[in-house]
Amino acid sequence: MKIYGEPVSRLIEEFSRLPGIGGKSAQRLAFHIINLPEERAESLAGAILSARRGVKYCSVCCALTDADPCVICASKKRDERTIMVVEDPRDMAAYERTGEFFGLYHVLHGAISPMHGVGPNDLTIAALLKRIQDSPADEVIIATNPNVEGEATALYIAKILKPLEIKVTRIAHGVPVGGDLEFVDEVTLSRALEGRREI
Amino acid sequence: MKIYGEPVSRLIEEFSRLPGIGGKSAQRLAFHIINLPEERAESLAGAILSARRGVKYCSVCCALTDADPCVICASKKRDERTIMVVEDPRDMAAYERTGEFFGLYHVLHGAISPMHGVGPNDLTIAALLKRIQDSPADEVIIATNPNVEGEATALYIAKILKPLEIKVTRIAHGVPVGGDLEFVDEVTLSRALEGRREI
Repeated sequence: MKIYGEPVSRLIEEFSRLPGIGGKSAQRLAFHIINLPEERAESLAGAILSARRGVKYCSVCCALTDADPCVICASKKRDERTIMVVEDPRDMAAYERTGEFFGLYHVLHGAISPMHGVGPNDLTIAALLKRIQDSPADEVIIATNPNVEGEATALYIAKILKPLEIKVTRIAHGVPVGGDLEFVDEVTLSRALEGRREI
Repeated sequence: MKIYGEPVSRLIEEFSRLPGIGGKSAQRLAFHIINLPEERAESLAGAILSARRGVKYCSVCCALTDADPCVICASKKRDERTIMVVEDPRDMAAYERTGEFFGLYHVLHGAISPMHGVGPNDLTIAALLKRIQDSPADEVIIATNPNVEGEATALYIAKILKPLEIKVTRIAHGVPVGGDLEFVDEVTLSRALEGRREI
């Protein structure tokens, strides 16, 4: 890579450290950058710095935001008594895209994972508890990921919230819509059977 | 995307304008950036700016470089009388990786393409001509891409160099090594037949 000179080689190296970008893509991106108008390159560099430095979390739901409280927590139209707990702001965005959920969110920023050294204190569980103690909710819907860490986190939160006598629910497991039963794994099939409903 | 706040949304947008990066990847990269240590984000932004601003071209061969002339043109070990003409610094890097070429390069920075409004004057063909007039070469090997633009450029350069009475060669077309004849296109097969050699 020395052949391109130090600035370009360094940029290729920096790009190849990003997730999902291999050597070839990093090279392609670097060549794209050096052929960009200078203001476009400055705009990209500026966006990186301002996103990293300017990232703020909503003091209510811990979501990414630029205003505090965030647009969802500040909205008068949302149902304040239903709180959906998600692992990540992207999960929150995914539920927002459904347009079917009108309550508030709480973003944990991860899931309990002893393997990766992530315990309950590394998440925003204490903030969730305090939030519910301050303004009681009717229902807390736990929408952590359907994997080991997500399930463990769901159980932990359910246990923590038990003394408050709030309805705690978990999103349904089952076969994904549009899927083909043949290709669905056994655990999902059993969960779909367990969760069957009368029609 | 408004859901993530302005700085993060802007970064996602900036990333999705890069080649080969779609909406999902841009989002993933942006979330990676906001979770990076601040000095890593600064280092990436700095690399973008310094690559864009610090990019220099060798005054001899027009390759990307940080020293002028570039390491290859400055090397005493290279054969100065053989010049390989390539479209792009990446093509030059590809030939350097073979370790089989010991001459110098000349980087055109593109190929003649009337469709895209690229004419001979947009490339470094004048610099190539002047370079050869100043210090004559024994052979000019044209290694532009084996497509319409590359072939047109090769023919154009061959014509331009004709009055100088230099040997002008074109890299061979044929079946790629390790390929399967069955999957090689007809044009390549005919070229491989045309270019057959006695063994």
